[in-house]
Amino acid sequence: MGNFRRVPVGIIGASGYGGVQLVRLLMDHPEVELVYLGGESSAGKQFADIYPFLADTVNQTIEAVEPENIAHRCEVVFIGLPNGLACQIAPTLLEKGCKVLDLSADYRFSDLATYTTWYDTERTDLTTAASAVYGLPELYRDRIAETQLIGCPGCYPTASLLALSPLLKQGLIVPETAIIDAKSGTSGGGRQAKINMLLAEADNSLAAYGVARHRHTPEIEQICSDLAGHEVTVQFTPHLIPMVRGILATVYATLRDPGLVRDDLITIYRAFYRNSPWVKICEPGVYPQTKWACGSNLCYIGIEVDPRTGRAIVMSAIDNLIKGQAGQAIQCLNIMMGWDETLGLPKLGFYP
Amino acid sequence: MGNFRRVPVGIIGASGYGGVQLVRLLMDHPEVELVYLGGESSAGKQFADIYPFLADTVNQTIEAVEPENIAHRCEVVFIGLPNGLACQIAPTLLEKGCKVLDLSADYRFSDLATYTTWYDTERTDLTTAASAVYGLPELYRDRIAETQLIGCPGCYPTASLLALSPLLKQGLIVPETAIIDAKSGTSGGGRQAKINMLLAEADNSLAAYGVARHRHTPEIEQICSDLAGHEVTVQFTPHLIPMVRGILATVYATLRDPGLVRDDLITIYRAFYRNSPWVKICEPGVYPQTKWACGSNLCYIGIEVDPRTGRAIVMSAIDNLIKGQAGQAIQCLNIMMGWDETLGLPKLGFYP
Amino acid sequence: MGNFRRVPVGIIGASGYGGVQLVRLLMDHPEVELVYLGGESSAGKQFADIYPFLADTVNQTIEAVEPENIAHRCEVVFIGLPNGLACQIAPTLLEKGCKVLDLSADYRFSDLATYTTWYDTERTDLTTAASAVYGLPELYRDRIAETQLIGCPGCYPTASLLALSPLLKQGLIVPETAIIDAKSGTSGGGRQAKINMLLAEADNSLAAYGVARHRHTPEIEQICSDLAGHEVTVQFTPHLIPMVRGILATVYATLRDPGLVRDDLITIYRAFYRNSPWVKICEPGVYPQTKWACGSNLCYIGIEVDPRTGRAIVMSAIDNLIKGQAGQAIQCLNIMMGWDETLGLPKLGFYP
Amino acid sequence: MGNFRRVPVGIIGASGYGGVQLVRLLMDHPEVELVYLGGESSAGKQFADIYPFLADTVNQTIEAVEPENIAHRCEVVFIGLPNGLACQIAPTLLEKGCKVLDLSADYRFSDLATYTTWYDTERTDLTTAASAVYGLPELYRDRIAETQLIGCPGCYPTASLLALSPLLKQGLIVPETAIIDAKSGTSGGGRQAKINMLLAEADNSLAAYGVARHRHTPEIEQICSDLAGHEVTVQFTPHLIPMVRGILATVYATLRDPGLVRDDLITIYRAFYRNSPWVKICEPGVYPQTKWACGSNLCYIGIEVDPRTGRAIVMSAIDNLIKGQAGQAIQCLNIMMGWDETLGLPKLGFYP
Repeated sequence: MGNFRRVPVGIIGASGYGGVQLVRLLMDHPEVELVYLGGESSAGKQFADIYPFLADTVNQTIEAVEPENIAHRCEVVFIGLPNGLACQIAPTLLEKGCKVLDLSADYRFSDLATYTTWYDTERTDLTTAASAVYGLPELYRDRIAETQLIGCPGCYPTASLLALSPLLKQGLIVPETAIIDAKSGTSGGGRQAKINMLLAEADNSLAAYGVARHRHTPEIEQICSDLAGHEVTVQFTPHLIPMVRGILATVYATLRDPGLVRDDLITIYRAFYRNSPWVKICEPGVYPQTKWACGSNLCYIGIEVDPRTGRAIVMSAIDNLIKGQAGQAIQCLNIMMGWDETLGLPKLGFYP
Repeated sequence: MGNFRRVPVGIIGASGYGGVQLVRLLMDHPEVELVYLGGESSAGKQFADIYPFLADTVNQTIEAVEPENIAHRCEVVFIGLPNGLACQIAPTLLEKGCKVLDLSADYRFSDLATYTTWYDTERTDLTTAASAVYGLPELYRDRIAETQLIGCPGCYPTASLLALSPLLKQGLIVPETAIIDAKSGTSGGGRQAKINMLLAEADNSLAAYGVARHRHTPEIEQICSDLAGHEVTVQFTPHLIPMVRGILATVYATLRDPGLVRDDLITIYRAFYRNSPWVKICEPGVYPQTKWACGSNLCYIGIEVDPRTGRAIVMSAIDNLIKGQAGQAIQCLNIMMGWDETLGLPKLGFYP
Repeated sequence: MGNFRRVPVGIIGASGYGGVQLVRLLMDHPEVELVYLGGESSAGKQFADIYPFLADTVNQTIEAVEPENIAHRCEVVFIGLPNGLACQIAPTLLEKGCKVLDLSADYRFSDLATYTTWYDTERTDLTTAASAVYGLPELYRDRIAETQLIGCPGCYPTASLLALSPLLKQGLIVPETAIIDAKSGTSGGGRQAKINMLLAEADNSLAAYGVARHRHTPEIEQICSDLAGHEVTVQFTPHLIPMVRGILATVYATLRDPGLVRDDLITIYRAFYRNSPWVKICEPGVYPQTKWACGSNLCYIGIEVDPRTGRAIVMSAIDNLIKGQAGQAIQCLNIMMGWDETLGLPKLGFYP
Repeated sequence: MGNFRRVPVGIIGASGYGGVQLVRLLMDHPEVELVYLGGESSAGKQFADIYPFLADTVNQTIEAVEPENIAHRCEVVFIGLPNGLACQIAPTLLEKGCKVLDLSADYRFSDLATYTTWYDTERTDLTTAASAVYGLPELYRDRIAETQLIGCPGCYPTASLLALSPLLKQGLIVPETAIIDAKSGTSGGGRQAKINMLLAEADNSLAAYGVARHRHTPEIEQICSDLAGHEVTVQFTPHLIPMVRGILATVYATLRDPGLVRDDLITIYRAFYRNSPWVKICEPGVYPQTKWACGSNLCYIGIEVDPRTGRAIVMSAIDNLIKGQAGQAIQCLNIMMGWDETLGLPKLGFYP
């Protein structure tokens, strides 16, 4: 391969579900080399102690989180820590020249006042936060290509915004009628021991949570407002589904023009996403199954119009851990590095 | 027990999921005796040939469907056949004096034109249909007590209407803003071999279906219109969830009075259902899990108000095969017979 | 009901899965009244704080565990605490005249040396332990009727012993060839937050655990030895199955008489269990599904003989929380009190 | 890429679960080109009509099955048809020079009398059958490299034989003591509408089937006999598990030398599989989860010895559709073509 050199990449917070997906995907990525895995509580352990099935495959030790040392070894750093920690690490990494992709909420908000209100945490890094780009490539590809710091979207916002954006951008709906009824597998709750996430509790059951107050609401609204050109409030309700992976967002919104039919919207969506290889618009009458997307970085979108009510109903399906998290972060990296947006990412789902 | 005599009851269409629930519940009901099990394709088989675990417990043979003979032996007949068949049998049973509870859609519509449009079947039994009462006891208890023919509600309409009724009845919402995003376990599809219902297909997946055209829509609208006092159109979207039993309906509607808060609604709901032993209104901030209801005839209702959007969000959870089908039919029977509404029905769910 | 008086019953350790099943079943039991719910860490809470769906139905507060006070109020006490605690409480309760049914391992072993070896806990209450009867009614009905203290069997031993007992008792197999390959839903692990029990981890997966060293092994062996009349060693391997409830034990053993056929064994099993209303022997060629038993106190047993290998293969299915725990304890109580063995226990499973 | 030419490959029977896995894996394989998809009942349909999520990705039409035409276009043909059909097609393909990999049972038996007995089908193609090699690369790598016709192993035999082979080959166990208690997800039953495979039936349940008579028994015995050097009879019991994918085989066998300990066996297994990149021997005390293997071509093997009983207990976990079917067939193809055995096959599972 001659002078070919892989880009050295590190992951801080590698032991959670997002982390293990990043490890899995980056190991198969043709342009990068995974040179650092870091964690707070797991420092000193072998990665394979946590995930024994990766023994022989991932032979790395989880190291302590020392930003200067990390910056010395890595050109790119993914941060997969709980909210409120990345903002303590990222400034050093950025200063030392690293590209940083943060999977937490820390760099998703251009307006830190919103962050402060919903996340109940004070922040002072206004300048750094203002330099971050929201890592939804289908909307912000150009800005992603030019930034050094990505605030990767939440899983629900990814599904919700891919479903809503064409309608908002084209001014086709009354924004305040938008209702997002979202459903997620339990892996979205992370690899933490909680009683409500036990199989015995969560299996064969279903419930809403965080109704009218889930923290992904302001994140969705921020981008909707950007697309609409004015402040938009949306209704967002997440539900916990008895399955491991996948999100389906069912989005309702009233059309401004009652004459629009399903095929019109399909045409508009296909045009909107014509340069987006990771979004697939379903044929008329086909509604996406989350299983179709699981294991891939794809988002499937199904579109319906109800002429009786004048509403568009748009359904989007993603793998919450890939397009909703680790895969999308790598998609952003590809764009930041000038690589093909699909490089190293799985396009065929894990079916059945 | 002296002269105590149990009421002889029959079930036509006993071999499906609704049928087996009826059998299970009626066998434990203190006032009835199950004297007839009937079916078309299964006639001549032992019930225990279909459900081997009921050998020794249900020793009956499935008999042919001969209405005159059935009427001769039964005072009460439950009909659990596919749509379009009950209307061919019920008239004879009624004429001979039986009380009839039909679990199909045949007698849910007072206006047969609606039935014809959505079910694509011609009907001529206008008089019989007009005499039927919609078997949702929480709304039509008095009429149920006096009728001979019950059109038992569908599973989705049961969950949807119990969530919506207090808001509509009290005129608290703008009816046309009502959106019902409903989620059901796969047993709602019946005991029929279909590829999309295979565990390998439906497990670990999730999708909407029948968007903007599901047949439970006009059924919901008919009752909503009755409650609102004028014609109401609603948005209804069902989803298939990877679990066996349970329905959660998440209902959104814009409040007329933006000053209403959650506690107001909880008070209103508790008043509305104060005589309804099978409806439980959750404490503030508690949202129902379908698992809580499964195995019982209960409907749990959780209530939220979003002051940012001015919407009420109401969640109702039922067991689709009990409160959504067999249990509710027996609840109707109890009322028709003048028995306590809770007689013979399970009140403690199958948890965990 | 005249002078009818219900027997006052208490539950220590009411907040776990075993406890909530006991509550559910005892509330529907016609002869008892639940007068005390106790717990260590949950003392002072409303039962409905832990299980919100039982608000309005179970209105009791969980009280502190004060044995003298409990004995004063209860005639019968169920203890559902972690291993090693019942033996500190039971002596006082017994002394005060209570009947005690312990769901832990504390009183399952007549030989405390075995307990000490496998449970790694010293014990001094030799006399009390020696007075306990192993609460498997199908084997020890007479002794259960006469004791004051029951050591209720573990869930795996219940399924395993009901499958093996007729073969051992009749001397039909070579005992040391017995292999029990058991499979359990995750509720057997209790209501404790553990990462390996998360839905995201345990769903769509399957593994053995405790191979060659699970603590239910000596419990099974103790009873097998009693039946065989000499010391018996068995192979026992439990597996964790991605489902909430149910145990299937698949038992293999070499027949002494190679001429025995399936129908012979079925006849022998039916005779062995002819007075056991909670055991159902399947028809030839029918193998039990755990779902058949779930929700009931039944044990279904399917029997096969492989003429090629000379082995009997016996499969038993139970609900691990009912016949494997709470239901069986109540079955024992029924016998202790001279009531019908089936009183207050569900006989029709929660199907589908 | 200069003169690089991909090998033209066809799949007959592409629409089932095995077919769609083959399509998925072969599309990502760097050395082959998928030039033909064939099917009987689905001929004329677009592949994406059956699997709508593959629209845009798999643009091929399913064609009729005309062997001469297929042979003209393909160098390699995978056959994924029901048992008894491949033997009608393969002779023509072989004659025309194709390499053939059959996923059915048709070419698994060197002795067609065994096939005839267990599969109840007459066969006359003795010569062709005799030329087939059993496609388990870990045992028959050299013969696979030299044959033109592969009979790909069943999913259960793959898991069972990988667990048993080192013990048999080294003469460490008493062969007739071998008991294989196997557990499979429901995708093993194929994409066919059967009531017992419905989610509503199979979820939250568990049962054995085919006890003492499953058709994979003689297949396992044939290879065991080959390894042992004399005729071996084994006990094989399959179970249906409420999950989509994965097989766990728990294998019990009595050790000839009671002095052998777990570490001895681990050493022996590691040596036996030292050149087998798709078999991973777990660390002492680690037992494999099926989830670890799912999505990859790996087989994980955990080993235990019970000094109390003198038995080895070996657990093997595979993805039934990859290492148990499509992936193993491609592994064989890699060997037949002289490519690296791991080429184009996924090595990192779909976790969680």
